Amino acid sequence: MGGDHGPKIIVPSAIDFLHRNPTTNIILVGILDTIEEELRALNFSSNSRLKLYGASEVVDMDESPSHALRSKKDSSMRVAIDLVKNGTAQACVSAGNTGALIATSRFVLKTIPGIDRPALAVVLPTINGHTYVLDLGANIDCSPEHLLQFGVMGSALVSSVENKSKPSVGLLNIGEEAIKGNEVTKRAAELLRTSGVNFYGNIEGDDIYKGTTDVVVCDGFVGNVALKTSEGVAQMLAKYLRQEFRRNLLTKLAGFVTLPVIKAFKRRVDHRRYNGASLLGLCGIVVKSHGSADSYAFGFAIKRAVEEIEGKVQNQISEHISESPHPSLQTEPLSK
Amino acid sequence: MGGDHGPKIIVPSAIDFLHRNPTTNIILVGILDTIEEELRALNFSSNSRLKLYGASEVVDMDESPSHALRSKKDSSMRVAIDLVKNGTAQACVSAGNTGALIATSRFVLKTIPGIDRPALAVVLPTINGHTYVLDLGANIDCSPEHLLQFGVMGSALVSSVENKSKPSVGLLNIGEEAIKGNEVTKRAAELLRTSGVNFYGNIEGDDIYKGTTDVVVCDGFVGNVALKTSEGVAQMLAKYLRQEFRRNLLTKLAGFVTLPVIKAFKRRVDHRRYNGASLLGLCGIVVKSHGSADSYAFGFAIKRAVEEIEGKVQNQISEHISESPHPSLQTEPLSK
Repeated sequence: MGGDHGPKIIVPSAIDFLHRNPTTNIILVGILDTIEEELRALNFSSNSRLKLYGASEVVDMDESPSHALRSKKDSSMRVAIDLVKNGTAQACVSAGNTGALIATSRFVLKTIPGIDRPALAVVLPTINGHTYVLDLGANIDCSPEHLLQFGVMGSALVSSVENKSKPSVGLLNIGEEAIKGNEVTKRAAELLRTSGVNFYGNIEGDDIYKGTTDVVVCDGFVGNVALKTSEGVAQMLAKYLRQEFRRNLLTKLAGFVTLPVIKAFKRRVDHRRYNGASLLGLCGIVVKSHGSADSYAFGFAIKRAVEEIEGKVQNQISEHISESPHPSLQTEPLSK
Repeated sequence: MGGDHGPKIIVPSAIDFLHRNPTTNIILVGILDTIEEELRALNFSSNSRLKLYGASEVVDMDESPSHALRSKKDSSMRVAIDLVKNGTAQACVSAGNTGALIATSRFVLKTIPGIDRPALAVVLPTINGHTYVLDLGANIDCSPEHLLQFGVMGSALVSSVENKSKPSVGLLNIGEEAIKGNEVTKRAAELLRTSGVNFYGNIEGDDIYKGTTDVVVCDGFVGNVALKTSEGVAQMLAKYLRQEFRRNLLTKLAGFVTLPVIKAFKRRVDHRRYNGASLLGLCGIVVKSHGSADSYAFGFAIKRAVEEIEGKVQNQISEHISESPHPSLQTEPLSK
């Protein structure tokens, strides 16, 4: 169990999730002594839906992915992914080292035929609901074909977990017109237009939060910058608002009167409710929780994994690929 | 006079600016009949610091830059830039077609030796002040050398208008470590490290609004997405807050009590105060106002131009280039 807080937040989060979801089974993977200590601290008595599985080591948060992959074959991360591979578990949820999680998942589970690289997809709030954005940083230098694959995977994800038959897919760009963008986005737009997904066209940064499309496709560099920038804006505005309320006695009084409104607002924009990025395109379900997630936030990452299991996201991606008329998505059978 | 509103907002904004700034001279460039009509509507009597200069046509907002450059040689945009070129004006401020403004400015004024392409720089608010971000969309596919030039130009801009001797420069990336990023940012970081500017290193999206550095360098695609995404987040949060205040009679009452706080907050985040993007790297000063700017916002674009004139930004850029030990910035003299 990795992440910034390890078993201290993951164990109570899992126990809480079990209590609230009577059909879910959870396997806690990690160093058994530590997990058992946490369970004792929670006065936890046994539950047939909770199992423990031992691992002798943990991938460090700043460890290089290749080192983790090569040298930590009994890490909690590796063991948890192995459990997905051999069918013992239906999904892996981790708050650990993102790079190591991507590298290990890809190595152990392999990608779905037609998909070159897994992508990180997150849900973000919009004015009227929410939208799915990918990639968020798993793929830095992307080809037009990769963006096409992200579009197909995002569409499949929304179909499976939201039960929408033709989710709209937008390509994040710097203008709506087809001539806008760099060479990669221009070509990606052409591919998406003939891919079989419900391609809306180019969208701009503000369209993410307007909820213009169900899915937003971008390369991992742009997606990561957009996400972090959003966090920065929200933090700054929150700080400004706090400062204005603390300016003098009258404004403090106004703040007191406004408390229920501010609380409702805070609940609505609480980023913990959007915790859990789907690592899409693998032969297996892997969800990445934010490393600094608390117990409440980690529960949303578990919930995401359960939704993907129920929505059979992997099958949906395979179906979307096989239905696409696009030749670059079609893979040759291994033997004829 | 272009932009979404043309002389209707630009003329009153200019008159207001003249009144508030007794040492500034303004030349209004455009179709004289329209400008004079606006002046009459404002009951404007003559002022020795205001001159009019006729142009027979206007570049349309959706016109292609190459068409504007080739076919509209007497457009208000072209004439205004010509006035900078021949020394009649010290700066050009335009709310017109961005692409045409960049292409025409570059063609007429040329770039400063050592600079390949002009870049759009804007000021953005931060938790404790503000920061300068470039490029915001003038350059879509950038080489590491272009990012180096943006760093040098941004540093020179802050030196000249903020009177800071060694502004810090951050490279927008997806992680702080030197190994992070795509091939272009990795190489750009190496160049910036040895460029003579006060290079802070890699920064992430949230560092923009934390104000981690005085200058943020990125390619125009990433910069544009970051800016538009920021606008989207702010709009969504404002809408959420409004909705929470309108929920019932009690929350409406709280909203009434909180009005002074909300007003102070709104004033602080008013994006009109940040209107005016500097087109840096030209042999002349050009400032781009947002096309939809109102009269209040346009005044800030004029103010920006005046600050750049007073700060001698072009000289500062040339000096920064000549002081840089980096060979890619050094240009050969035309004759030896």
